Amino acid sequence: MIPKKQEVEAACERVKPYVHNTPVLKSSFLNELSGTEIFFKCENFQKMGAFKMRGATNAILQLSDERKKAGVVTHSSGNFAQALSLAAKNLGVKAYIVMPENAPQVKKEAVKGYGGIITESESTPIARETEADRIQKETGATFIHPSNDRNVILGNATSAAELLQTHPDLDYVFTPVGGGGLIAGTALSVKYFGIDCKTIGGEPFEVDDAFRSLASGKIEFNETTNTIADGLKTFLGDVNFPIIKELVSEIIRVEETEIISSMKLIWERMKIIIEPSSAVAFAALLRERERFKNKKVGIIISGGNVDLKNLPF
Amino acid sequence: MIPKKQEVEAACERVKPYVHNTPVLKSSFLNELSGTEIFFKCENFQKMGAFKMRGATNAILQLSDERKKAGVVTHSSGNFAQALSLAAKNLGVKAYIVMPENAPQVKKEAVKGYGGIITESESTPIARETEADRIQKETGATFIHPSNDRNVILGNATSAAELLQTHPDLDYVFTPVGGGGLIAGTALSVKYFGIDCKTIGGEPFEVDDAFRSLASGKIEFNETTNTIADGLKTFLGDVNFPIIKELVSEIIRVEETEIISSMKLIWERMKIIIEPSSAVAFAALLRERERFKNKKVGIIISGGNVDLKNLPF
Repeated sequence: MIPKKQEVEAACERVKPYVHNTPVLKSSFLNELSGTEIFFKCENFQKMGAFKMRGATNAILQLSDERKKAGVVTHSSGNFAQALSLAAKNLGVKAYIVMPENAPQVKKEAVKGYGGIITESESTPIARETEADRIQKETGATFIHPSNDRNVILGNATSAAELLQTHPDLDYVFTPVGGGGLIAGTALSVKYFGIDCKTIGGEPFEVDDAFRSLASGKIEFNETTNTIADGLKTFLGDVNFPIIKELVSEIIRVEETEIISSMKLIWERMKIIIEPSSAVAFAALLRERERFKNKKVGIIISGGNVDLKNLPF
Repeated sequence: MIPKKQEVEAACERVKPYVHNTPVLKSSFLNELSGTEIFFKCENFQKMGAFKMRGATNAILQLSDERKKAGVVTHSSGNFAQALSLAAKNLGVKAYIVMPENAPQVKKEAVKGYGGIITESESTPIARETEADRIQKETGATFIHPSNDRNVILGNATSAAELLQTHPDLDYVFTPVGGGGLIAGTALSVKYFGIDCKTIGGEPFEVDDAFRSLASGKIEFNETTNTIADGLKTFLGDVNFPIIKELVSEIIRVEETEIISSMKLIWERMKIIIEPSSAVAFAALLRERERFKNKKVGIIISGGNVDLKNLPF
C-alpha cells in the first residue's frame, strides 16, 4: 500500500524537466528566534506559485497517450486548479476545471491564464463532484483528485526529496496539513531519503481534522472552517490517510493569531511572499520551539499565492 | 578620481565575511513580458534588507583602529541608518544616528534593534547636519555619508561585481538612482568586470534630479519629492557625480503608476518583497522594452524594507 522508494525516485526523474528545483533559504534571525536551524524549501517559487505543480505534473505524465488525448478534469478553487491547468498545458493536454460559481474572479482568471477550461458549479461538494462526473463521461477525461491520488502524492514527494538530497541530515521536516497530499508525499521522502528524520504536520486548531483523524484512527471532518489558511480547509482521503497514519510522527495545532504572526515574520524578515497555509508549518515549530532546540528542521513553504488586496496585517 | 579596479576588488574581499553574496533570481514570466533575459540581483535578501549594508561595512572597515574606537555617525531616516547601525555592531563599533524627530516609529525601532544610538533633530537638512557635526565634535566619531562617500560607493560596487562574476555576459545593468551611491558603485563594477556592458539608471519623473544633472553637467535638485520611491528623494553629490557622469550611459525616467505596477508584478510573479525604489529600475526597463529586446539585463533589486501596513496596492 505504501509507495516504494523506487516509485518516489521515478517520480523525481519524471517531473524534473517540468518543475523548478526550488531554492532552500535560511534566515539567521529566524534561527536565533526559534533556537533551531531552519531550511525553508521554497515552493512559493515553484511554477504557478505552489508545490501542487509537482503532483499535477506527475499525475498527467503517468497517463497513457490515449488518456492524455482525452484530457484531465478536477474540481478545485485553489492552487490545484491552476497547477493542473499549467501542467496540462505544458504537456499538450486539455484540463477541465470545475470551480464553484462564487469563486473569486482573480482565481478564475488565473486558471484561464494557464489555459484551463472552466466549468462553473454550485459550491457544494456534491454539485462539484456531479459536474466533474458529467465532464468525465462526456469527454473521457481522467479525473485527478487534488490530494487523494497516489500519483499526485508521489509528485508532491519530490519537494522533500530535493530538500533531503542537499540536506540529508535534517532531524525533522514540517509541512502544513490540508487535504493530506503534501504531508503524505513528504513523509515518503523523509522515510526513504532521511537518515534519522521525522515528518511533522502543522494544522490550524480551527480545522484540526487531521489531528483528530490520527487520534481516532479514522478520517475525521470539520464542522466549520474558520481559518485564514484557506488551503487547509479540506480533509484527508483513503489514499493518503494510510500513509499519514504510518509515517507522520505528529500534528501540532496552532491558533489563527500564530499563523498571522508567523506569516508576517517570514514576509518581513525573509522578504518572501508566502500564503497563510505555508505559515502554519512555521507557526507549529515556533509554538513548540523548546522541543526542537538545536535541531535541524526543514520546512516546506507550500506556496505564495495570496491576494495582495486582502492581507491579514 | 575614478576609483581603480584594484580598489573595487579589494572592497569585495574586505566586505565578503560580513555580507551575503545575494542570490540572482530569474522569472520566465517577466522574461516573456519584457522580451529580455533578466537577472535580478536580490539585495532585498541582504542583511538588514538592503544593499546599503555593503557600503556601510566597507566604510567602517577602512577606518583605523583608533577611529573605529570613536565610532561613526550619519544622518538618515532610511536604510542607511539601519545599515550603519548593523555594520557597526558587527564590527564592535558605536554608531550614532541622527534621525528627524518625525521619522516613523518603526524605523526608529529598527535602528535601535540593530544597536544604533539615535539622536533626534528637526527634519530640515541643516538641522540634521548641525546635529551630526555636534556629535562628531563631541565624540570624535567619523561622519559617513549614506551615498556621497568613496568607501560607501566602493562597498556598493560589490553587488554588481558579484552579479557579473556569475553572469559576465550581461549587456546592461539597471539600478535605481537616488543619492547616487548605488549607481556609481554599480558603474564601476560594470566598467571593470563587464565585457560589453552598460549601466543604466531608473529614476522617477517626480524626482528626476539625476536625469537633469546628466543633461546640465552639474548637480541639480528637486523642488518637490512626490514619489512613492522614498529611497530616491535625495540628490547626487560631488564624490559620486563625477563617476556617474563618466560611466553611466543614461537615466530612464518612469511615472509613479509604472513604479507601482512594476512592484506589484514582481511581488505577484516572483513572490519576493521589494521596496518601491527597487521597482523603479525594472519599470525603466519595461518602459523602454523595445530597445532591450533579446538582451541580457541585470537589475539590482536594491532592498525589501516596506511598511506592510501601507502598500500602494
